[in-house]
Amino acid sequence: MASTTSAMTSAQRTGKLLIESDKVEGTAIYDVSGNAVGSVKRLMIDKLSGRVADTVASFGGFLGIGADEFTIPWNKLTYDPSLGGFRTDINPDQLKGSPTFYRENDYGWSDRQREQELFFYWGADPYWR
Amino acid sequence: MASTTSAMTSAQRTGKLLIESDKVEGTAIYDVSGNAVGSVKRLMIDKLSGRVADTVASFGGFLGIGADEFTIPWNKLTYDPSLGGFRTDINPDQLKGSPTFYRENDYGWSDRQREQELFFYWGADPYWR
Repeated sequence: MASTTSAMTSAQRTGKLLIESDKVEGTAIYDVSGNAVGSVKRLMIDKLSGRVADTVASFGGFLGIGADEFTIPWNKLTYDPSLGGFRTDINPDQLKGSPTFYRENDYGWSDRQREQELFFYWGADPYWR
Repeated sequence: MASTTSAMTSAQRTGKLLIESDKVEGTAIYDVSGNAVGSVKRLMIDKLSGRVADTVASFGGFLGIGADEFTIPWNKLTYDPSLGGFRTDINPDQLKGSPTFYRENDYGWSDRQREQELFFYWGADPYWR
């Protein structure tokens, strides 16, 4: 029991194992310094595994431009009970350079290769393994 | 490749691997005969694994009484593209006899033993293993 993940620590602190999807939607996102930088719009759920795959999030002043939606791996967010929101180590430059294929009008969330590309970009553990 | 799960078949049919949480919320639920019996209110997500654990669903005329909310294992629902909703083999009698601990005012979704009780009742594979 030497190591605990940050997610585990959060769950232990709040004592709540499960969280409501409609409560996650709209929850604020904070950067490493604790500044509010965005909010969760929705979760993208992998049908086969029942796992939360991605988060669609709106990032605003963070980028110095108008609010814009980005899709990021779910595990780039860590719930922080002291903030009542998610913390992320994502920075504006990473966000600007990130894949945006999901913005295509006909993108059907059906392309595992593109999900791989997204997770590789963010250095996130894939949910489908 | 001899066997496919029903969830897999659904995903193949629609070609969509991921689904939006706010699209699942409000989606109709049909019984084995294809009658609309309820709808999804929200998903309960396991913080540690990022898995969808339970579905909070409203079942109405199905029970011959007013609409009421029940918490059921997520894997008791199967998406059926031909219906544009979820299919379930749950029947009214099962629902009437099912655990209702989650209705307690102070229930904090923090009790794995009660989750086990719920999954055992429904004969559903636990998401935490």
